[in-house]
Amino acid sequence: MTIRVGEDQPIRLDSGLELGPVTVAYQTMGRLNADRSNVIVICHALTGDQFVAGIHPVTGKPGWWDRLVGPGKVIDTNRFFVLCANVLGGCMGTTGPRDINPATGRPWGLGFPVITIGDMVTVQARLLDALGIDQVFCVIGGSMGGMQVLEWATAYPERVFAAVPIAASYRHSAQNIAFHEVGRQAIMADPNWHGGAYHEHGVTPHSGLAVARMTAHITYLSETALHRKFGRRLQNREAITYGFDADFQVESYLRHQGSTFVDRFDANAYLYITRAMDYFDLATEHGGKLANAFRHTPARFCVISFSSDWLFPTVESRAIVHALNSVAANVSFVEVESDKGHDAFLLEEPEFHETLRGFLDGAARHRGLPALAPEAV
Amino acid sequence: MTIRVGEDQPIRLDSGLELGPVTVAYQTMGRLNADRSNVIVICHALTGDQFVAGIHPVTGKPGWWDRLVGPGKVIDTNRFFVLCANVLGGCMGTTGPRDINPATGRPWGLGFPVITIGDMVTVQARLLDALGIDQVFCVIGGSMGGMQVLEWATAYPERVFAAVPIAASYRHSAQNIAFHEVGRQAIMADPNWHGGAYHEHGVTPHSGLAVARMTAHITYLSETALHRKFGRRLQNREAITYGFDADFQVESYLRHQGSTFVDRFDANAYLYITRAMDYFDLATEHGGKLANAFRHTPARFCVISFSSDWLFPTVESRAIVHALNSVAANVSFVEVESDKGHDAFLLEEPEFHETLRGFLDGAARHRGLPALAPEAV
Repeated sequence: MTIRVGEDQPIRLDSGLELGPVTVAYQTMGRLNADRSNVIVICHALTGDQFVAGIHPVTGKPGWWDRLVGPGKVIDTNRFFVLCANVLGGCMGTTGPRDINPATGRPWGLGFPVITIGDMVTVQARLLDALGIDQVFCVIGGSMGGMQVLEWATAYPERVFAAVPIAASYRHSAQNIAFHEVGRQAIMADPNWHGGAYHEHGVTPHSGLAVARMTAHITYLSETALHRKFGRRLQNREAITYGFDADFQVESYLRHQGSTFVDRFDANAYLYITRAMDYFDLATEHGGKLANAFRHTPARFCVISFSSDWLFPTVESRAIVHALNSVAANVSFVEVESDKGHDAFLLEEPEFHETLRGFLDGAARHRGLPALAPEAV
Repeated sequence: MTIRVGEDQPIRLDSGLELGPVTVAYQTMGRLNADRSNVIVICHALTGDQFVAGIHPVTGKPGWWDRLVGPGKVIDTNRFFVLCANVLGGCMGTTGPRDINPATGRPWGLGFPVITIGDMVTVQARLLDALGIDQVFCVIGGSMGGMQVLEWATAYPERVFAAVPIAASYRHSAQNIAFHEVGRQAIMADPNWHGGAYHEHGVTPHSGLAVARMTAHITYLSETALHRKFGRRLQNREAITYGFDADFQVESYLRHQGSTFVDRFDANAYLYITRAMDYFDLATEHGGKLANAFRHTPARFCVISFSSDWLFPTVESRAIVHALNSVAANVSFVEVESDKGHDAFLLEEPEFHETLRGFLDGAARHRGLPALAPEAV
C-alpha cells in the first residue's frame, strides 16, 4: 500500500529543507481494534523494508521478521495491528533518491535532501495521522529500527505507550561511521555511479554496492558465527587452488551476499540511509545529555542487546538503560546470550523471542488490551 | 640493497611452480659479528617493507619500527645485526607481480604465481644462504610478520635460536579471510585494474586499492582507540553539513589513509600478499595438529598478543602457546594490556617493549652473545 503525506504541508526536514508530497509505502497485518489501541509499529533496519512477514514480492523469500510476526507468533497479528513502512530515502516505494524530483522531472539522485532518523520518524508520524492513529501501543525495531524506536519515544512521547529498541544505539559510533564510510566510498568509486546520476545513464554501480554490502555483512556476524558457519572450509574443492577464485566458503558466501543485494537495493538509497544512521546522536540533540532526551517520555521500555554483537555492543544499550533509569523511566533490560552477532535479532533466538513475547504481553495488560484477537472480542 | 637468489636453482614454490631468479631487496643495520651469531631477522607485515628504521625513502617518514630498532633501542643495532627483506610478491624491490616476467617481457600481473607465507620464508632463507648466515639468533615479526616467524621456526628449526611472533596467528580466521576478500573485490571491481594488467594500460586502480586499505585500516584499530582518537568529532566544522563530505574526523582520517596508501603500494601486490595470509594454516600443513608443527623446533619462543586486538586476538596466540607447551617447547607468553588494537605492535607500548627487551637479553645470554656491541669486543 502507498499513501501520500505532506500534500498540504510539506515535511520540514532536520536539514531545514522542505520535502513534499512524500509517498509512503507500507504494509499492515492484523486488524485495527475499535479504539485504535492495538497498533504495533515495526521499524526496519538499513537494508530492510516494509515486507516484514509473508513472502517478499521482490526476493520471493520470507520477510525479514517472518519468524516473529504473524498469527499466533511473538508479534501476534491475531491480537495486534502491525504496521511497517519503508523509510524515507528508501527504495521500496517510499520517496527516495531513485524517485523523480518533481522540480526537474528527473530522478533525484544526489539532489535528494540528506535525511535523518528523525525525518524518517516524522514521515511515519504523518502516516499515522493519515490513518487516524493517535497513539501506538508499541514501537519495535532492531539496529537502525532501534534508532527509530528511540526517536519515536523522544520526539513523540505522548504517542508511544511502549518501546522496544533492539541491538541499537543512541548514537552511531566512530567505528560504525568508519565502516559506513568505506561502503559509501566503494559505491562512489564505481564509475557507473556517475555522481549519483546512474539512472540517467542506464547503468547501476553494482560492483561498488556489492563491495559495500560485503563489508557491512561481515560486521553483522560475530567471529564465532563466521568460524562455526565457515571456518576455513573450502568451497567445492579438495585443496586450495593457488588463485583468486573463491577457494574458501566464506568468500563464496560473501560474494553471494554482495551480488544478490544489488538486485534488490538502490545504491543512492544506501548512501542516504547510512548517512542518516551516522548522523544519529540523541545525546547531542538534547544538550549533550542522553537522559534529557527521555525526560518527558511516559513509555515503558524493553531494551534488548546480544552478547556477541560487536556492531551495536551491549555497552551501547546499557547507556540507554542508564539514561532511562536516571529519569526514573519504566525500563527493563535484557542482554541475550548469543554467538550470532548483530544479526541475532533476525535469527532464531528463543531467549530473545520469549523476552519480547513476555514484554508485549505485560505491556498489553497494562494498556488494557484483551488477550484475544479484536474480532473475537 | 638487492641480491638475486635462485639463479642456479629456481625457487620451488608451495604451488608446485618454479620461480627464479628472484630479486630480494633488503636492509641491514648493525654489524655482523665474527661467528655470525648475532643476526636478528625482522619480518614485515602486509603493507610493511624492509625500511624498518631510519627515514623511509618513499614516504620520507620514519620506518615502521623506528621506535624499536636502532642503536641503544629495544632491538639494539649496537649489539645485533638486523636484517629485513621485502617479502616475495611485494612491491618495494623484491620480485612481485609488478616486475617484468622474463618469459614475456611484460609485467607479470596476474601471471605471477600465487605465493604463500612459506614461499616468503624460503626466499629469506636463500638470502641468508647467500650472505653465509647459517643460524639466526632471533626471528621477530608482527601480524603477517609473526606468521613468517612461525614458518621460520617450523620449516627451518635448526636455523632459528629464538622466535618472537607478535599479534599473529597460526592460521588466518574466517573473519580475516572475509575482510581480505572484500579488499580484493574492491580492487578487482575498479575498472582501472584491467584484470591485473593496469601497468600496461598506464593506469592504476587507485580507488579500489584505497577502499581496500580503508576497510583493512578499521580492523587494525580497536573500537576504543577509534572512539578516543575521533569519537563523533567533526572535521573543521561547527555542525554536520547534511551531505556526503567527510563531516566526521574519522571519515577524513580514513580517506587520508586510503589516498596516501595508493602512492606507496601496488594493487596486485596487495592481492598476492593478502592471499598468502589467507592460505596460511600451520595446523593443516602438519596433519591437522598444530603441535606437530613444533615437534622439531629447539627454538625458545616469546609469544606476544595485545588485549584489544580483534584481528589477531589473544585466543589465537594462546593456541600457539598451547601447542608449544604440548611438545615441551621453551615458550613464554605475554598478553599486553592495550586499548590500541592490532596496531599496538607498531605503537608506543612500554610493556610490550620491555617484554621484548627482556626476552632478547635473556636469549642473548643463553646464546653466549656479549652484552656489548661487536666492534667493542
